[in-house]
Amino acid sequence: MTGTLIVAGLGPGDEALITPEVTVALAEATDVVGYIPYVARIAEREGLTLHATDNRVELERATHALEMAASGRKVVVVSSGDPGVFAMAAAVFEAMERAPHLSKVDVRILPGITAMLAAAAKIGAPLGHDFCAINLSDNLKPWAIVERRLRLAAQADFAMAFYNPRSASRPHQFTQTLDILREECGPERIILFARAVTTPQEQIRATTLGEARPEMADMRTVVLLGNASTRSIGRYVYTPRHAG
Amino acid sequence: MTGTLIVAGLGPGDEALITPEVTVALAEATDVVGYIPYVARIAEREGLTLHATDNRVELERATHALEMAASGRKVVVVSSGDPGVFAMAAAVFEAMERAPHLSKVDVRILPGITAMLAAAAKIGAPLGHDFCAINLSDNLKPWAIVERRLRLAAQADFAMAFYNPRSASRPHQFTQTLDILREECGPERIILFARAVTTPQEQIRATTLGEARPEMADMRTVVLLGNASTRSIGRYVYTPRHAG
Repeated sequence: MTGTLIVAGLGPGDEALITPEVTVALAEATDVVGYIPYVARIAEREGLTLHATDNRVELERATHALEMAASGRKVVVVSSGDPGVFAMAAAVFEAMERAPHLSKVDVRILPGITAMLAAAAKIGAPLGHDFCAINLSDNLKPWAIVERRLRLAAQADFAMAFYNPRSASRPHQFTQTLDILREECGPERIILFARAVTTPQEQIRATTLGEARPEMADMRTVVLLGNASTRSIGRYVYTPRHAG
Repeated sequence: MTGTLIVAGLGPGDEALITPEVTVALAEATDVVGYIPYVARIAEREGLTLHATDNRVELERATHALEMAASGRKVVVVSSGDPGVFAMAAAVFEAMERAPHLSKVDVRILPGITAMLAAAAKIGAPLGHDFCAINLSDNLKPWAIVERRLRLAAQADFAMAFYNPRSASRPHQFTQTLDILREECGPERIILFARAVTTPQEQIRATTLGEARPEMADMRTVVLLGNASTRSIGRYVYTPRHAG
């Protein structure tokens, strides 16, 4: 079985941030597959079937998409942001690895504007120097790995972006994250909470680790932490290109 | 002096990866400012002045752009990729900090598809787990910081993206980078060289640290390193979402 599967990034929310490449792919699709709120962004039209599924079923969703592609349908799996950053691209290859009969499907990943870069742009240039991106959810990794990674990243003086910082089912972990970061970086370090960036619900708050509270983040928030040189200028926050 | 300055990301090269937001900003500009090869991507038209400048003059370029914006012109500073990732956004705020009379200019950063995410999309999902981005140029930071950051990032088991890996003036540093990474990660670790991604000159090579040679990179290359779990499946390379 062959066929082509497209995995496309819809960007953070604003239609003006969807690349023309993705727009063309969606216009040609017979099937769009994804998490409910992302599929809700796709306009219905004749000849297009929308397959919206719940969270935490990424592997089933990816397998279903590969199977439809193998059967000759023009399938687009949608992610918000960029599909390669804590989104569906890796899930598609995991599904392919478990289902060798689907390994002949041609997979094309179409990049998108990921949340941390949309948030950084709204705020100034907080990721203007070396930085890292960490998924704070422990659905897929032990918390001990997250903690170790946070400490090493702080010691490396990376600016940091945190995805999935806090959910109703694990509110304590973001509290621990802030405690670790305060210990490693001190209370004056700049931290930014960017919720629902580029949507009508957008909320952006700049504060310090000393003032940060866990409730400032939810699952629609991307959190950015400055490095030791990150500073404010007027309403902007930026990290200088130089260091040391 | 007030005025508005736009700093826009042109993406990695393919026109189909330029966001509609950036296309609109360019259509309305009176002046486009940037490094020669990026300004060369902008079509000439009546009423538009192109200001192309050489590399390593980012601060002068940024100050000039802020001054033109303050005088009422519609100025767009262009970067390739995303302006907030090792590009002009931070330089604009550095320039503003040095020239307080320009601090009333309204600066708008328009994000773009950054090279590491375009490269990752072409290859599969090598940045599908926690990752970091490091600028290997030591124009703006001591080499000792780069070396320390590389070792800590390896110990944290981040996938990594390296910008500006190698130039004619400092070929030895990428040699040292590969030596450090081999020491920390072993010879089997997957490394990817993505040159001129999404352009007609695109070249992508997947190999291991044991087989990697410094000449595989130049200034048009973004280099991606897998984490300990990164693997190949068919012609794709991906990093699983889970760890530990």
